[in-house]
Amino acid sequence: MTFARYLPILAWGRTYNRAVLANDMLAAVIVTIMLIPQSLAYALLAGLPPVVGLYASILPLFAYALFGTSRTLAVGPVAVVSLMTASAAGAVAAQGSPEYLQAAITLAMLSGVMLAVMGFLRLGFLANLLSHPVISGFITASGLLIATSQAKHILGIKADGDTMPELLDALAHGIAGTNPRTLVLGVVATAFLFWVRKGAKPALIRFGLAPRAAEMVAKAGPVVAVALTIVAVVMLGLEAKGVKVVGSVPQGLPPFALPGFDPALWERLWVPALLISVIGFVESVSVAQTLAAKRRQRIVPDQELVGLGAANIASALSGGYPVTGGFARSVVNFDAGAETPAAGAYTAVGIALASLFLTPLLFHLPVATLAATIIVAVLSLVDLKTPVLLWRYSRPDFAAHGATIGVTLLAGVEQGVIAGVLVGLLLYLWRASRPHAAVVGRVPDTEHFRNVERHKVLTLPHILSIRVDEGLTYLNARWLEEYVLERVAAQPELRHVILMCSAVNAIDASGLESLEAINHRLADGGIALHLSEVKGPVMDRLQRSHFLHDLTGRVFLSQDRAFSELANDDGSPVDPVDTWQARGLI
Amino acid sequence: MTFARYLPILAWGRTYNRAVLANDMLAAVIVTIMLIPQSLAYALLAGLPPVVGLYASILPLFAYALFGTSRTLAVGPVAVVSLMTASAAGAVAAQGSPEYLQAAITLAMLSGVMLAVMGFLRLGFLANLLSHPVISGFITASGLLIATSQAKHILGIKADGDTMPELLDALAHGIAGTNPRTLVLGVVATAFLFWVRKGAKPALIRFGLAPRAAEMVAKAGPVVAVALTIVAVVMLGLEAKGVKVVGSVPQGLPPFALPGFDPALWERLWVPALLISVIGFVESVSVAQTLAAKRRQRIVPDQELVGLGAANIASALSGGYPVTGGFARSVVNFDAGAETPAAGAYTAVGIALASLFLTPLLFHLPVATLAATIIVAVLSLVDLKTPVLLWRYSRPDFAAHGATIGVTLLAGVEQGVIAGVLVGLLLYLWRASRPHAAVVGRVPDTEHFRNVERHKVLTLPHILSIRVDEGLTYLNARWLEEYVLERVAAQPELRHVILMCSAVNAIDASGLESLEAINHRLADGGIALHLSEVKGPVMDRLQRSHFLHDLTGRVFLSQDRAFSELANDDGSPVDPVDTWQARGLI
Repeated sequence: MTFARYLPILAWGRTYNRAVLANDMLAAVIVTIMLIPQSLAYALLAGLPPVVGLYASILPLFAYALFGTSRTLAVGPVAVVSLMTASAAGAVAAQGSPEYLQAAITLAMLSGVMLAVMGFLRLGFLANLLSHPVISGFITASGLLIATSQAKHILGIKADGDTMPELLDALAHGIAGTNPRTLVLGVVATAFLFWVRKGAKPALIRFGLAPRAAEMVAKAGPVVAVALTIVAVVMLGLEAKGVKVVGSVPQGLPPFALPGFDPALWERLWVPALLISVIGFVESVSVAQTLAAKRRQRIVPDQELVGLGAANIASALSGGYPVTGGFARSVVNFDAGAETPAAGAYTAVGIALASLFLTPLLFHLPVATLAATIIVAVLSLVDLKTPVLLWRYSRPDFAAHGATIGVTLLAGVEQGVIAGVLVGLLLYLWRASRPHAAVVGRVPDTEHFRNVERHKVLTLPHILSIRVDEGLTYLNARWLEEYVLERVAAQPELRHVILMCSAVNAIDASGLESLEAINHRLADGGIALHLSEVKGPVMDRLQRSHFLHDLTGRVFLSQDRAFSELANDDGSPVDPVDTWQARGLI
Repeated sequence: MTFARYLPILAWGRTYNRAVLANDMLAAVIVTIMLIPQSLAYALLAGLPPVVGLYASILPLFAYALFGTSRTLAVGPVAVVSLMTASAAGAVAAQGSPEYLQAAITLAMLSGVMLAVMGFLRLGFLANLLSHPVISGFITASGLLIATSQAKHILGIKADGDTMPELLDALAHGIAGTNPRTLVLGVVATAFLFWVRKGAKPALIRFGLAPRAAEMVAKAGPVVAVALTIVAVVMLGLEAKGVKVVGSVPQGLPPFALPGFDPALWERLWVPALLISVIGFVESVSVAQTLAAKRRQRIVPDQELVGLGAANIASALSGGYPVTGGFARSVVNFDAGAETPAAGAYTAVGIALASLFLTPLLFHLPVATLAATIIVAVLSLVDLKTPVLLWRYSRPDFAAHGATIGVTLLAGVEQGVIAGVLVGLLLYLWRASRPHAAVVGRVPDTEHFRNVERHKVLTLPHILSIRVDEGLTYLNARWLEEYVLERVAAQPELRHVILMCSAVNAIDASGLESLEAINHRLADGGIALHLSEVKGPVMDRLQRSHFLHDLTGRVFLSQDRAFSELANDDGSPVDPVDTWQARGLI
């Protein structure tokens, strides 16, 4: 364990050469062209000045290149995190105020520190609390919320809200004030972008381009839409006719500044910052893992926390807002041939150049174009197949999925994530608290023991054999007592209980205490408790307790041996085999 | 499923006869004698007028007799819940104010409603979140807090606080004002009660009493202390010399009244009410289960929620505060021969008679005597053996125990319970997120497959066999992907991965998605994924998904068959057995 673990660049940097440089540079150019309109649009979605989107796409990329373990992840502003930022910052300040910007920067700082600390403490496993159905429900609901929230820009009206009912209500109230020119421009841009997604590549191929080149050029669709609508605004004088434009974007590199330290603000923002961190991490890691596996590479999730943490701290220090790895962008980076995180650094250089030289050109960019970019991007996130598959495969997972969608749409993004985690956890704990167990008996003429309810097996009235298919933990300790004692109460001639532990992988202190309680309670009723087939590590641990000393019965190596030896001890002096024959058991 | 489930009295009431009545009556007399000083003392601990303790010992006992399933549980005020009530009510109002009393009554109402609702929804399993180490830590820390909080009454000073540092600080500041007469009386009472606990029974037996009778008489120790100290106060005129007495206790039955409905108060009290409910329920159920098992009876935990809920609602409607099943009192009830919950109802009649006729006698009862009763009762709750046993048996459980004690002593009771639950859950999730798994190989000349790190087994460079000893759930889905892909990356000649599912009891939607991701990622690298020994119910469920259709490999009935058939498929035309021999494997 050395410090090199925290600097993956030391590993891939050693073999860096000219060929890799060329590939990384090409990928960086393509991602830069894609990222310029995206970063402006997501800043708009987050309720921030467009330039903040550019700032969030420079330093964070350098930071991730130093600390990240994915070779192809493209970090920057993304849709869902932008929506969460808008929701969190909007709760403490009015959009457009300096306090709102300060809140967004503080969110990036908090989130960065949290991610880095989680990385150092190796708490990546906490992201497991977000199950696939919860994440997919959250993304679907967020996509719907985001698309609806952008409709106002297409209509050229004002309509704010954090939840679906609020948004629809605001749209219904404002729709009469629709600006027809904005609407036409917005609808045309949206239609063009939808076409670019599906139709541009085949069209370009028919035009003579090679398939791979056609795919790359098609990714520039949003840039084309940006350029064309700027030209349209200037040529047709649309700005004077009420079409809202981005306006003046400050020219130059991001400012370096420490975000203000305001404990009251930190206290109000730590919960949303935590949710942004976890959602961002989960999204980013699943993209990174998918891409890494395609080239048989590995990512290190705990170090990814450090990488994303560093990226967010860098964002906060340069006037940006929370960032994470983006799905579409990373796939483009991968397909364009990026080989190392250096491609991300080159992209950062590209965005820095754009901040220095291109911002004056963006003055006339219609806001409706950015909204169209967002709408087309997020509607692809809405996934209607998953609920159907979940309904068919697992009702509890369907419930967690549905609860997440419902709460996100009706109460907001933070509430949605929290509800999803809680419902998932509740269902898990409910199942964990009542594991599978069975009363077992001997399959005739064999040494095997099977569930008495499913198989024709031998049992004896003075022996009860129970198999538990789960570790004995505090979640099922109380259940175990109830399960055993209930079956004991139903069998009056009982003298021996055998707990078959072949599937018991662990016994925690609560499980042990339950075993002790069962042992004592059975002893009160004159019944001995035995164990069989206890696994090695479990037995080692039991030997460190008093339990084996207090146990009224014995520990048998096999269930068969336990059953055979105890069969004799039914209080009668008769040979067990005779007894069984007499009882018609064999 | 009929309504009778909610009225256990319908079951035991049918066989009620004169013999049972006599036993129940005897037990009720003994418990009443024990309960009078206890209920006064615990009300004092809760910061309430002593009469509230009596009120909480009448109607709730009737309610539990109707709805409870334990035959011998004695319900009423208990130490830990009284402390929690003081902490919660103290946070919203000053002790002694009408608002403080109102808060205590509201806590009983909220807690009663929560318990009853949890009972109807069968949410008893949520109490599992409190592991044995957490409960035992909480009880130990509460015992220390309670004993320290009562020291002021023994010293005759004022010293309030919710945490150990606050209490010790307040005692240090106030100790100079100690009233010597109160101190002597308090120390003598405490010493007497300690002696009664251990020494009274043998002394009485030597005096000629039968052992069982001696035990019962010894239980009346607190009543003797109460009587003797009242006499001492009156004879020596101690009241005029600064010894604090209980003063006038209203005579008569509890008032029937609806507690005020104040939404703001409900909002501030629901969290402590929930904690009081859960702690009270867990304590009560474990006592009830222990006693029931001694007579081979059963209790129904979800119905116990209803019974305790009814008891708390009854307490709130008659001016009482939160109640639950008490340990010492229930054991006395059991030992005295109580056979049905009717014994509780007769106890309630006893307490009602005491409220009607005995309260004038309590005017001169010194508060120090009540404090002595509390101190002697709670110090027996302090358990110093458990941390030692936990340290030896399980460090994570020790950590949860220690965290609960530490946070309870330093930050308060509510924080302690919450911290204990969170630490326990965190440790559980941490372990659940990285289950046991092993790469396995064939034990030579058998069909068995064992861990390659522990046994001498056969493996092939083009086959990787992995056994996972746990269900595939969302908590370990990400781990599974990492585990499999890491091992795949380390084996360059690989063509087949076999996932041995003999210990996989369930696969939830997230586990399924991980399997799909693994399947796709392996396919990208030209590797086939196979499953072996999939359990019946798991297979049934998989057939409701697309996974088996997308699976690049096959599903084998046994691991042996999978290994044997795939051994051939290493890309060479040679017979596998020849290959193995050539490689020196057999």
